[in-house]
Amino acid sequence: MTAPATTTTSPSRARPGPARGALPVDPTHGRLAPLGLGAVELHDGALAHLQQLGSSAVLQHCAGWLERAGWVRNFDLAAQGRLPEGRQGREFSDSEVYKLLEALAWESGRTGDPALERQVEDLTARVAAAQEEDGYLSTAFGRAGQGHRWSDVEWGHELYCVGHLVQAAVARLRTGHDDELVAVARRAADLVCRVFGPDGDQRVCGHPEVEVALVELARATGEHRYLDQARLFVERRGHGVLAEGQFGPTYFQDDVPVREATRHRGHAVRALYLAAGALDLAVEDDDAELAEAVRHQTLATLARRTYLTGGMGAHHEGESFGDDFELPPDRAYSESCAGIGSVMVNQRLLLATGDPVHADAVERALHNVVAGAVGEEGRSFFYTNPLQVREPASEPPPDEMAPRAASSLRAPWFAVSCCPSNVARTFASLAALVASTDADGVQLHQYATCTVRAPLPVGEVVLAVTTDYPADGRVRVEVLASPEEPWSLSLRVPSWSAGSWVDAGGGRREVGPGTAVERRAFAAGDVVELELPLRARWTHADPRVDALRGQVAVERGPVVHCLESVDLGEDVGLAVVDAGRPPVEQDGQVLVPVAVRHPDEAAGAYADEPPAVPDPPAYRLVPLLPYSRRSNRGPSTLRVWMPTS
Amino acid sequence: MTAPATTTTSPSRARPGPARGALPVDPTHGRLAPLGLGAVELHDGALAHLQQLGSSAVLQHCAGWLERAGWVRNFDLAAQGRLPEGRQGREFSDSEVYKLLEALAWESGRTGDPALERQVEDLTARVAAAQEEDGYLSTAFGRAGQGHRWSDVEWGHELYCVGHLVQAAVARLRTGHDDELVAVARRAADLVCRVFGPDGDQRVCGHPEVEVALVELARATGEHRYLDQARLFVERRGHGVLAEGQFGPTYFQDDVPVREATRHRGHAVRALYLAAGALDLAVEDDDAELAEAVRHQTLATLARRTYLTGGMGAHHEGESFGDDFELPPDRAYSESCAGIGSVMVNQRLLLATGDPVHADAVERALHNVVAGAVGEEGRSFFYTNPLQVREPASEPPPDEMAPRAASSLRAPWFAVSCCPSNVARTFASLAALVASTDADGVQLHQYATCTVRAPLPVGEVVLAVTTDYPADGRVRVEVLASPEEPWSLSLRVPSWSAGSWVDAGGGRREVGPGTAVERRAFAAGDVVELELPLRARWTHADPRVDALRGQVAVERGPVVHCLESVDLGEDVGLAVVDAGRPPVEQDGQVLVPVAVRHPDEAAGAYADEPPAVPDPPAYRLVPLLPYSRRSNRGPSTLRVWMPTS
Repeated sequence: MTAPATTTTSPSRARPGPARGALPVDPTHGRLAPLGLGAVELHDGALAHLQQLGSSAVLQHCAGWLERAGWVRNFDLAAQGRLPEGRQGREFSDSEVYKLLEALAWESGRTGDPALERQVEDLTARVAAAQEEDGYLSTAFGRAGQGHRWSDVEWGHELYCVGHLVQAAVARLRTGHDDELVAVARRAADLVCRVFGPDGDQRVCGHPEVEVALVELARATGEHRYLDQARLFVERRGHGVLAEGQFGPTYFQDDVPVREATRHRGHAVRALYLAAGALDLAVEDDDAELAEAVRHQTLATLARRTYLTGGMGAHHEGESFGDDFELPPDRAYSESCAGIGSVMVNQRLLLATGDPVHADAVERALHNVVAGAVGEEGRSFFYTNPLQVREPASEPPPDEMAPRAASSLRAPWFAVSCCPSNVARTFASLAALVASTDADGVQLHQYATCTVRAPLPVGEVVLAVTTDYPADGRVRVEVLASPEEPWSLSLRVPSWSAGSWVDAGGGRREVGPGTAVERRAFAAGDVVELELPLRARWTHADPRVDALRGQVAVERGPVVHCLESVDLGEDVGLAVVDAGRPPVEQDGQVLVPVAVRHPDEAAGAYADEPPAVPDPPAYRLVPLLPYSRRSNRGPSTLRVWMPTS
Repeated sequence: MTAPATTTTSPSRARPGPARGALPVDPTHGRLAPLGLGAVELHDGALAHLQQLGSSAVLQHCAGWLERAGWVRNFDLAAQGRLPEGRQGREFSDSEVYKLLEALAWESGRTGDPALERQVEDLTARVAAAQEEDGYLSTAFGRAGQGHRWSDVEWGHELYCVGHLVQAAVARLRTGHDDELVAVARRAADLVCRVFGPDGDQRVCGHPEVEVALVELARATGEHRYLDQARLFVERRGHGVLAEGQFGPTYFQDDVPVREATRHRGHAVRALYLAAGALDLAVEDDDAELAEAVRHQTLATLARRTYLTGGMGAHHEGESFGDDFELPPDRAYSESCAGIGSVMVNQRLLLATGDPVHADAVERALHNVVAGAVGEEGRSFFYTNPLQVREPASEPPPDEMAPRAASSLRAPWFAVSCCPSNVARTFASLAALVASTDADGVQLHQYATCTVRAPLPVGEVVLAVTTDYPADGRVRVEVLASPEEPWSLSLRVPSWSAGSWVDAGGGRREVGPGTAVERRAFAAGDVVELELPLRARWTHADPRVDALRGQVAVERGPVVHCLESVDLGEDVGLAVVDAGRPPVEQDGQVLVPVAVRHPDEAAGAYADEPPAVPDPPAYRLVPLLPYSRRSNRGPSTLRVWMPTS
């Protein structure tokens, strides 16, 4: 066993090469080097299921809706000189097309499907046709009848859109295509460098995204000017460079410079995208102060501003973080994109520091928020992910664009539709979250049935991982190929898994939360087994979380469960659980003792006397449901946190 | 003792005459007839203090800021043909000038101060100069470079502004001035009747207000067309006549017709202004169904959607009501104007039905939300009134316009500054909430040291009320003049005051909550005494209010108390109270046993084990503060609801 490393950056490992697969994040330095798509192949289990749902449904659902909504056609109109008349969608709709392109690029790269490749090429041609001579590309600004270029950096999202265009181009480069999309994105990025350079426009984008994109473009192309531009954007922010809107400078993270802030704050997606970009910058610059600032902000946010589900963002107003321990379950905003943002930030911190707490955070957000943002059919989405629903939706949303956060049922598309395409690109690149290497060996962070091909300095290691995690806690790692020299196999032991054990052939030994390391000379056929104690357990909230007093939740491994009225047969607002008895596992279900207490309907909200204690409640075992699978059976009320009396 | 009447409207009483004083609300029918300014004179105590604070500070503070902000000057620019260039403020800024005019009109009428009269005349002249030939009056619409008239009924607030102009004119009429302001308002209202009449524009205003104003204008002028127009506006609403904005039709109360709705919902101030107008309409039309709908909505809202303080509106997003029992103390929006809206609706329901529950609601909102919306100096204001503050403001807001709801300290003015001028007009007309008559006698609803002159059918009754309520529970009513015939003196016994007694000269008799009635032939010099049991008491929340589990509050009479960090010496987030011991009263203060438990700073929000029970807490008596007097001593954290363990 080793304690997790907590140094923030380190130049000790070799630059990744093509043997590492297609990498969504490709840092030059860091404690761990990622393994990308191809190096890790998902075969079965929860992550493979999400990847498959993305392939079979989410991706083409998004492609279809982008056409139906007219957001791709905006590019055609631009090329034909027919804008702004007929333009559809909000000022940031271009970014959805770019996120789809990024998702298609990863998916095409991973599968080699020629139909996907044609789809990328077709979409690229339509986007490219709208680009202006000097590289400017936006269907929302710059024409007669539209706002001037860069006239509204606070809300116009032009730089944000360039960021997503660049991310799509990076996905093409990393999957082996230096194509037209790359050329388009580089022209757009070059224009940004000219306009917003050291002596240029001194503002930043109201919605961070271009920062993280420019660092990856610098990494993917070797061009330092993109990194320099990202540095300008990160360092300018926090000095009140943006005009204050109705939510104040905190909304934009323009209240305090990144390197001085102590928390993620303001608009949650903005905050997390900025943190990802700032950490990438810090890693490339070997800027330990900046890296440590982002790490501290993230750890404090995980401890005090994160929902049990891994969700972030406690306020609907401003879609923002709340104060420390302000985590109301019913008004949780917990935007799907903020869940993805947390995955982005924590995966980067995992690579930079090696600290498994960040892999825990990735896992929690992934299995609860991100997995649950999508309906079981892959064609409906949640924008917000509250932990309590008091009023069931009256009916499933129609096959129309929905408002942002209106219903307790998933909707096919939104007027502000950042989440579906963000899910698509995340599902298409999930395999890159699973494993990494360092000079000494291979690390497994997320458990899935998969093959891992890891290029170590001593030679290639090939592993076959077999597991039904998180349904089952047994993880079997078979060495398929190994160099003769010794190397280390590191296995994450999640924070909740006291009582785990590892058997590397010499019998079981107990391993505590953190990282279990087996170092030796491996041979093909060697097997290392990890057993994590996957039992449903009660979870309690710190008393500082006022909104959760007198309530408990149930987790099983990283999977947060919830009580739905469909299973209770009544409104879950009437439920009381007996937390003195452990949850029961039966036929693959988790059940807890629940009683229903019908309130005095005439009673108001307040009384001089404490609520009367009624007759001893009649508890019966009622099944809970993994939170990510909620709301797949029609309108219902639900709660993750259940009262104990 | 009589049970409260619950019939909704009744034409049984005579139309009020001038002897009733200046009446902000003057219904033609109803169970009770109001007594206005002049008929009731406040001399001392809490309500007199607020009236005085309005006179000495709030009124001229508002007048000064309206000049400083340029919102009066907008009218000058309009008259000079210089708009839209140089126009200041939001689209509804005209309404603030009108609300000031209304406040000045009541104040001038009440005091006879010639300086106030000149101020009304000067302001009226500036407003009148901006009115167009056909009666249209808005500094925000209708000119080249502005939106067309009525082009944005959803958000433009043109009809809302006309409503407040009309209310100011009604105040002039009711205080004896059929002047230029009245002429201006009638021209504006006449235009509204022409444009939005039966065959005209079929839309309504995004922000109700014109409805309640038009009914009062009909009452004040005897012109039925204003009532007819109010009816059109009330009945049109709820059929999706407004374009859906980001918050959906519920925000505008355009989801369900008024007479079919079961709750106040959506934007709280909009909902309450609409309810006031709908009830006024129902009363004039003798429309029992509509009156009963508003009564039912209000009773359900009081029981399930109202804060202990009487505040309404649980969401920052959309400034709206939440679901039933969704009453988070920290994210309470509880807008000051919604507190005033609740006073408006409940005072009208009190007059219509005689049910003292509505006088209780007026009292609660008045003494906690409305009184607390203003700083002790009368020149700073809260826009929102949360029941828990986790983070102290870093510093008092500067002498500048503040955002809507940013700080835990009061601000002098807001970019959206509806609250200060609303407070001004409410304080200037407070006396009209105190008493009423019916065919049989006089009713006292709010207790204050005052003189009441009541014209009964049998002759004039003059009462001298002496009390230090709500500091003290003794109310002494001396009859100064009485006709020889018997009549009834009715005294409200608040819902919390079990164990009260009345002594009408023949010894004490116990009276329960509701109304205590003393009917006989009174003579000058007769005294009736009421004693309400004013003891600080613990208050408990219904278990359906999830956000308040395991917490208690302290009330004393209608006065909600809070714990401030200034008194605790530490963040109130660390406080635990012993609710097993009663609150202590000492030297005019309420004290409760409070212990401080320092949390494990390293602990996160969640754990597998219940929170450890530390050593028996060391309780000490700590003073609480009436909620309305919070935040007068610099930055602090505060909480109304305090954890019991």
